[in-house]
Parts: sequence; C-alpha cells; structure tokens
Amino acid sequence: MIVIKTNLCDLLNIEYPIIQGGMAWVADAELAAAVSNAGGLGLISAMNSNADWLRAEIRKCKTLTNKPFGVNIMLMSPYVDDVAVVVAQEHVAVVTTGAGSLPARHMPMWLEAGIKVIPVVPSVANAKLAERGGAFAVVAEGGESGGHVGDLTTMTLVPQICDAISLPVIAAGGIADGRGVAASLMLGACGVQVGTRFLVAYECTIEHMYKEKILAARDIDTIVTGRRLGHPVRSLKSPFTKMYSKCEYDSSISNEEMEKMGAGALRKAAREGDYQNGCFMAGQSAGMVKKEQSAADIIKEMMSEAEEIIIKVKNTVIKNNQE
Amino acid sequence: MIVIKTNLCDLLNIEYPIIQGGMAWVADAELAAAVSNAGGLGLISAMNSNADWLRAEIRKCKTLTNKPFGVNIMLMSPYVDDVAVVVAQEHVAVVTTGAGSLPARHMPMWLEAGIKVIPVVPSVANAKLAERGGAFAVVAEGGESGGHVGDLTTMTLVPQICDAISLPVIAAGGIADGRGVAASLMLGACGVQVGTRFLVAYECTIEHMYKEKILAARDIDTIVTGRRLGHPVRSLKSPFTKMYSKCEYDSSISNEEMEKMGAGALRKAAREGDYQNGCFMAGQSAGMVKKEQSAADIIKEMMSEAEEIIIKVKNTVIKNNQE
Repeated sequence: MIVIKTNLCDLLNIEYPIIQGGMAWVADAELAAAVSNAGGLGLISAMNSNADWLRAEIRKCKTLTNKPFGVNIMLMSPYVDDVAVVVAQEHVAVVTTGAGSLPARHMPMWLEAGIKVIPVVPSVANAKLAERGGAFAVVAEGGESGGHVGDLTTMTLVPQICDAISLPVIAAGGIADGRGVAASLMLGACGVQVGTRFLVAYECTIEHMYKEKILAARDIDTIVTGRRLGHPVRSLKSPFTKMYSKCEYDSSISNEEMEKMGAGALRKAAREGDYQNGCFMAGQSAGMVKKEQSAADIIKEMMSEAEEIIIKVKNTVIKNNQE
Repeated sequence: MIVIKTNLCDLLNIEYPIIQGGMAWVADAELAAAVSNAGGLGLISAMNSNADWLRAEIRKCKTLTNKPFGVNIMLMSPYVDDVAVVVAQEHVAVVTTGAGSLPARHMPMWLEAGIKVIPVVPSVANAKLAERGGAFAVVAEGGESGGHVGDLTTMTLVPQICDAISLPVIAAGGIADGRGVAASLMLGACGVQVGTRFLVAYECTIEHMYKEKILAARDIDTIVTGRRLGHPVRSLKSPFTKMYSKCEYDSSISNEEMEKMGAGALRKAAREGDYQNGCFMAGQSAGMVKKEQSAADIIKEMMSEAEEIIIKVKNTVIKNNQE
C-alpha cells in the first residue's frame, strides 16, 4: 500500500502530491480527468485557445471526473483575458500560469472565485513576485523540463526558492520516476509536477508517433532552441530543431524570420504527427520514459518507487543514528 | 554525531562520501589536503600544468595529509602524457578525468600503479565507455555545475547513468548543501562531488575577490558561454561573459577569434583578481553559498544537513508504513 503523503495533498485535496504539466496541444480534458481520477491533479492547457474552446474542455472534464482539476494559462496568449474569465466562471480548483509574469490584473477575480493560483516560476525573483501577488503555491520549474524553459535546473532552483519564500513549492523538471519524486522532497518541495512521462499515458490523445519518439529517446536526445530570441524551448532533436539551431547562429536571418519558422510547430507534432516540421516538446527525462501506461499506473508506480527509495536510503546510509 | 555513510566511503577509504571538484587554477595541494584531512577526498587539478609543477604539488599535498587524495587530469592538456606518468609514479589514490573521452592509452599504467580511475561524464554513452574501459566509478556531472559543462542536468543524468552501468555513481552539479546531498542519494548516487562551495573554503587560495563574487551571487548570476564552439563553460556573469556572449551570435567573428578571447580568462579570475577580463567559473549553486568556512566545516555541515533531511522527510511523508 502506498502511503506517501505531503501537505500538498491536504492543500489541494488530492491523494498523491503530483500535478500533471499543463502542456499546450497535449493537456486536454481527457488527460486531466485521467490524472485527477488517479489521485493527482490534472491540468487542461488553455494554450492559445479562445474562451469557447476552453469552456467546452472544462465542462467535458467535469463530466469525466468529480475530483479537483486545474487549467494552465499561458499569459502570452492573445485570448488571455477571455480565458481568465472562463476559469473564474467555471470555478476550476487551480490555475497554473506560465510564459509571463504574475497575472496581477486577473488575481482579484480568481481569488474571488476561490481559485488557487500557482505560477510556474524559473527564478527566485519570480517566486517572490508570486508570493507578494497572492499566489497559493509555486511550481519551481528547472530547465531540464520540456517546452518553454528557464536557465536554472531543478537541483539548484528548488532549494533556492524554498529558502526565499514561505509558500508551498512544487518541483518540476526532470522528474519521471520515483527517484525524481524522492529527490524533489529532499530539496524541499512538497510535491512534483510531471509533464514528459504523461505524454505516453494511454489517456494522452496526442499522435502516437509523438509517443513513439518519447519512448525511443536517449538521454542526449533533447535540445534547446530559441535562446537567441529570448524564449528557449526544449524538445526532441528532429529535422525541425536541426534546421532551427543552424539558423540561430546565422545573423543574416532576422529574428522575425526565426519567430515565423517556429509558429505552429508544436501543433504539427502533437496533432498532425508531422515529423519533418513538428517540434516535439519533451524534457530531458524522456530518456527515462520506457513504457506506455495508464495515468493511474504512472502515478502509483512513481509514488511507490519514491517511498521505497526514501526508506531504503534512510536505512542504508544512516545505520546507527538514534532518531 | 554524523553517521551518514555510503559504500563510497569504504571504496575510497574516506570518512564522508564527498569529493572536491578538480577545478583548474583553484584546486591545489592546500585545498586538496584540507578536504582530505576533513574526511572527504581532495583533488589537485593538473589543468594545463607540466609534470614538474604537478609532481611538486602532489608532494606538497603528501606533506599536508596522510589521507588519500586525487588528481584531476584534463585530457585536452598539452602535457597530458607527462602528467599521466607523474600520477602513476606518485601513486595517487584517485585520478578523475575531464574534458575529453576515456584515457584508454593511460589506463594500463594507472591500473598497474593501483590508481582508481574515475572519469567525469556528461552522458550515458560516456559512462558506458568508462565502464568498458576499466573505470572504478564515474562522476555524473550535470550542466548546472561550474566550468566545462554538458547538456544534461544532475536530476536527469544521475538516474539514467545509474540505470546504464553497474559502477558506483557520484553525483555532481548543483550540490552545495545537505539537500543536494540527500537528493543525490535518492537519485541513485553513492556520493557527491562539490566544486563551487569549496571556492569559499578558508583553505582555497584563489583571489579573495573571486570568493566575494561567489558569496554575492544570486540564483540567476551564472551563464554559459562557448556553446557555439562546442565547449560550453559556466561562470558568473561578468564584463567578460557579457562581451563574449554578444560575440557568440555575431557570425562576422570567427571561431578562432572566439577561442583566443577565452584564453587565460580563468587564470585572470582566480589568480589575478582581474574583474574586467576574468572568467569566474561557478555553478548555479553559487546562489546557495553564503559564508566562508573551513573545508571541514563545509563537509560536516553538508553531511549533518543531509542526514537530518533524510530522516525528516522519511518521518513526514511516510507516516504509517510498516517498514
């Protein structure tokens, strides 16, 4: 029996301290509901969608689960103001925010609606901003994660954020098995956010080819592109990243041209299975993802591994201590 | 009383499972002896020095400690063949190798001399090569570390290497306190290598200004330069890195000119205190390094913290388990 519990479980009313990453073009109602039904916190990504799409997705999720779930809002979305209203009207349990600073102008409405706001932050300064702005917790996301990434890694970001704020800290980036969960707890986190491993959940509706690429990935098979434009993205090495990386060091190609090249590439990967032109976002943990499973099995396996490891390490390295 | 022990302690005949990083222009006989006397494994960096310098440094270290210590050899050094002979003649306990592939041509001589060879590896492929080549263990070094860095972070590299080889794995990169030690053990490592925190050890003989920069560093104050040349280096943000980073995206500047710009910059930082032109190598953990201490106090503090955290997490998150 798995008995691992942290205060995040009580705080979010979930069984296991694990949040599913709000991956654009990936995290839909089906995946979110599967994760929430399995005892974690599922997230729907609002990505660049409009209010109608998001409302329909939230309502669909409510038909699939009675458990709490959340929505990830990209603050750079052209529809951000519209979707901000939708999550308040629909009273989703949690909103995580990414790709931008704290959504100060939406905070009063969200807090009024009883939403727990959990910004995804890449630095101590952003974590402090979140705390001052009324956030419920933060996700400290290391640059080994997939998608839009910061510079700091999970190993260094999590403890520094824990030292800087008094909110609950959820670790993200590079966590794909029980070892990552256990390590995150040692770094001071009270839970984890997992993206890449859920890409291969049975309930994840992306193109199967994307899943196959994740399952086949080795440790060195991800790359960061977009550093030159100031918004780096981690994805699997592919024809697209090869072409794009080459252009980054070519100053005859303008930044505008670079931006244009990247547009739509994630959709092509996740929803069209276009290997030539798709950008298959994935974290460095892809090399650890070896099998397709249900979301429930992924969560249970990670949690029971974490529990075993914590007990084993404690018993092995601290032999004679009088607790 | 600190009782944390792993099999690395027996394997290397040391008291605590901690190795000091073999930092060029930093890791000399004084620092290495201080770390070894404190129960860790100190390392002297052979950097680009010649045989006479290294032999003198090893002999000095032997006068300062009776405990085992090691030498880090950069395989790209122009004097690599000479210093390889010196470590064998002097029968140092351990050789770690970096900046290059496994030193196959030196291995028979080193093994003959009873040296334990521990390559620093940035990927699974390199770890497998090390195992096939007769290595004693590997240091799995994440890209959050200072100096020459790989792509993979500690959080993802350590478990993937543990899965791939059966040698002891030592974690490096981003480890500057007991949380990092505890997390590394959860990831499967049997010990840690620490660089940045030892920069501010009393026994570290670098320019004091370098130490002050480390102590003042925030989380976001390191940067990687040299990606364009294929040998990325992490250091503190400085006038040098600002100039250098700008040039990286300027394709009118040749790679040869870039190489020339970087030459000698670490020496200028560590031994001349030249803020304008120095490259102050440091890991992302610099933001966690807050005080100067003796090497012994650094080690004891890290180990007792690790022990406390492991016990605390185990008791907090696994409440009802029947072990």
